[in-house]
Amino acid sequence: MIDTADRQKVYSVVDSRFDDFVRELSEYTRVATISAQGTKFAEGAEATRKVLEAHAARVRVMPEEGGPPVVVGEIEEDPSLPWVILYNHYDVQPVDPLDEWESDPFDPVVRDGKLFGRGTSDTKGNCVAQAIAIQAVRDVVGRLPVNVRYLLDGEEESGSPHLPPFADAHPELFRGLGATIEAANHAAGGKPVLSLGSKGILSVELGVRTAKVDQHSSLATVLPNAAWRLIGALRTLRSENGKVLIEGFEDGVPSPDPEMLRYLRKNSADPLAYKEIYGVTEVFGGKTRYMRLKRYMYGTTCTIDGMWSGYTGAGHKTVNPAVAHAKLDFRLLPGQRPDAVFDKLVAHLRNKGFGDVAVEKHSTFEPASSSIRERLPQAILAAVREVYGGEPLVYPWSAGSSTTWFFTRVGTPSPHPPGVGYDGSRAHAPNENIRLEDARRSMKAIAGMIMAL
Amino acid sequence: MIDTADRQKVYSVVDSRFDDFVRELSEYTRVATISAQGTKFAEGAEATRKVLEAHAARVRVMPEEGGPPVVVGEIEEDPSLPWVILYNHYDVQPVDPLDEWESDPFDPVVRDGKLFGRGTSDTKGNCVAQAIAIQAVRDVVGRLPVNVRYLLDGEEESGSPHLPPFADAHPELFRGLGATIEAANHAAGGKPVLSLGSKGILSVELGVRTAKVDQHSSLATVLPNAAWRLIGALRTLRSENGKVLIEGFEDGVPSPDPEMLRYLRKNSADPLAYKEIYGVTEVFGGKTRYMRLKRYMYGTTCTIDGMWSGYTGAGHKTVNPAVAHAKLDFRLLPGQRPDAVFDKLVAHLRNKGFGDVAVEKHSTFEPASSSIRERLPQAILAAVREVYGGEPLVYPWSAGSSTTWFFTRVGTPSPHPPGVGYDGSRAHAPNENIRLEDARRSMKAIAGMIMAL
Repeated sequence: MIDTADRQKVYSVVDSRFDDFVRELSEYTRVATISAQGTKFAEGAEATRKVLEAHAARVRVMPEEGGPPVVVGEIEEDPSLPWVILYNHYDVQPVDPLDEWESDPFDPVVRDGKLFGRGTSDTKGNCVAQAIAIQAVRDVVGRLPVNVRYLLDGEEESGSPHLPPFADAHPELFRGLGATIEAANHAAGGKPVLSLGSKGILSVELGVRTAKVDQHSSLATVLPNAAWRLIGALRTLRSENGKVLIEGFEDGVPSPDPEMLRYLRKNSADPLAYKEIYGVTEVFGGKTRYMRLKRYMYGTTCTIDGMWSGYTGAGHKTVNPAVAHAKLDFRLLPGQRPDAVFDKLVAHLRNKGFGDVAVEKHSTFEPASSSIRERLPQAILAAVREVYGGEPLVYPWSAGSSTTWFFTRVGTPSPHPPGVGYDGSRAHAPNENIRLEDARRSMKAIAGMIMAL
Repeated sequence: MIDTADRQKVYSVVDSRFDDFVRELSEYTRVATISAQGTKFAEGAEATRKVLEAHAARVRVMPEEGGPPVVVGEIEEDPSLPWVILYNHYDVQPVDPLDEWESDPFDPVVRDGKLFGRGTSDTKGNCVAQAIAIQAVRDVVGRLPVNVRYLLDGEEESGSPHLPPFADAHPELFRGLGATIEAANHAAGGKPVLSLGSKGILSVELGVRTAKVDQHSSLATVLPNAAWRLIGALRTLRSENGKVLIEGFEDGVPSPDPEMLRYLRKNSADPLAYKEIYGVTEVFGGKTRYMRLKRYMYGTTCTIDGMWSGYTGAGHKTVNPAVAHAKLDFRLLPGQRPDAVFDKLVAHLRNKGFGDVAVEKHSTFEPASSSIRERLPQAILAAVREVYGGEPLVYPWSAGSSTTWFFTRVGTPSPHPPGVGYDGSRAHAPNENIRLEDARRSMKAIAGMIMAL
């Protein structure tokens, strides 16, 4: 463990280099690698190389079969030391609707203590912050207590479709003492968040066809209706209170880790806040904050993301539709496997008499979680206590999905440490931004994490 | 009753004037009064006046508050005689998709014994055919046994939204010994159809909003989903086998008229034919043709005409939708009232705990039926036997909706006689057409009907 005086010196160096952070991130943000639109992959990879090389990493831009390159930057202090991996991505979300941006998404500006620009939060900001933080440790202490590997994906925002074969071909890149996966957002009030994994997801599309063509609705007495048929199938999938009714759906899910439940009980976040944020009519889970948080974390879902059938224009058309569709996603807990759930869904529909409902798999992400008792999450806890003067909000996993599983499947504990973003970062929306004070503290927390190892 | 020799003479005159029918209808068809697009109302009314005046009617083009004019043409033989009204409309459906037409919809052509053009079947063809037929009777016999009133609506294809106040203001125009309402189509094999009314309809739109904005679907554990909420409401409305579950929904519907059931038993039509026509997966109602026909005629429906929620584009978006909509229509039997059903629907949703589901009334048509024992349907039966040499297919009503109720509500029996169209007329689709032989026989049937009075 690096001593207290050195740690304070490192935090001072981070402060002194904070302007570098804004400048380097601004430059990095100008490169518009939008994976959904296939733009500027090579430029994005080169910009990433530049950021990492500026902070002492030896960089390889590695080809990914069928996809954009993966950028790997390493600081290998000593072959005998363990590796810590910092995973982020250099691609960003599309920017439309462009006219809702108050400033150019690719020409970052500081307003009211915030830096606005696409990717400032998700996740170019974390890449730059982490590289500067780790260099500060090195400059003060002389040598890092671990080897460090930056690993940057080029199409995370498109679901990293080409990462699996890359990860299969290069398992050594994903192995280490631990990996930080992007980062968790600060709460609105400024509290840092530590999350220990992510839920999985299976997204599918159901399709029903009851006729070759739509019919006049006067025939509906004797002819089937695709919308009703689809609803018939859907209502077998989920109870009114949200429980997924597919047989064996939650098989393999362990009981919650009591330590995680203790953290959840102390967690001051409350899903009730969504009432204000989204204007929802109600928030489910129970009467207490803890019950709601537990449902949020340990609940699984079958969500209708979209559905459509028949005539959906203005006015009315009396038509008995031949076709109906629904897009669904299932949020999965560690222990569930998306492919197994897909098979159970298909079998369920067949067993319930809906073998005519076609099921198309859209995408999957495996759930992943790590124990808080591992060295890397413990180092994050220690750093947060020192930098923020208190405990982070600890979650067993994030409710969204991520690439975490590529690390945990090869045995690498993979927490999501406090990052540069916050709950208002609008990561996939117009006016993406970070609060500079969050960024400054997250840099110190990353430095502190390395120093605590 | 006009004697057999005169009747045969009338049918010969109809034959001799059949070319006039094609010519006059072709000219009438060229006037593109498309009510949905608000085009050529004045021209359509004038063209109608011309058709009727050419056949001895005294014509009034009557203004309709807020809508296109109603054209009324009368042949009043003697004030003491009863009136027979022939209702049709001079507006037509839109023609898109235009590129699916094999010839100009507004420049009719004869191909393979069929006349193609928008409105040839629905219902300009009936107007011209009826006017020529009735003039033939007059020319041969000297005087009609009844007074005749042609009544032509200008926006039937838009649901006749301005007809109710017109009918309220001019009830005398709707009163008579009987009224023919447009016409029924011939079966594909050539059998004529007599229908004694029409079902009613209530169309509505349901809307649910569970939040101000859509949310990321990772929040679906604790936040409501508008699509599921809508499905929750919808599933209370209808059983899996199609029965409408709204309390008191079928209140007021009398038992079927045994005479109508006898006709239905003899009816050679079979809804199973829809399997071929529409490529449906199944046809409901039962194992026998009679069971299927009975379900088709005496069944009520709650049809989803359209529904939509969330993301319906290509690929997948993991979103928990804030809004969901469904367009429904309820087909109603004589005895049911659309407005009362609307009230029952609203009360039902409230009672089932779905008071948050907004219900918007889109449109209504009252159901209507007449007894086959009335003079006008009996005259049609007699004429069909003579012209076609057999019984028509008799239905208690058509499964679709129409303006029949404006006549029955003032006590006018209102059958739908055999018309110029057939099951393949594609009335609301590209390549609308009539078979010339059907048209010729329907003209004779209308002449025969008048002569049988």
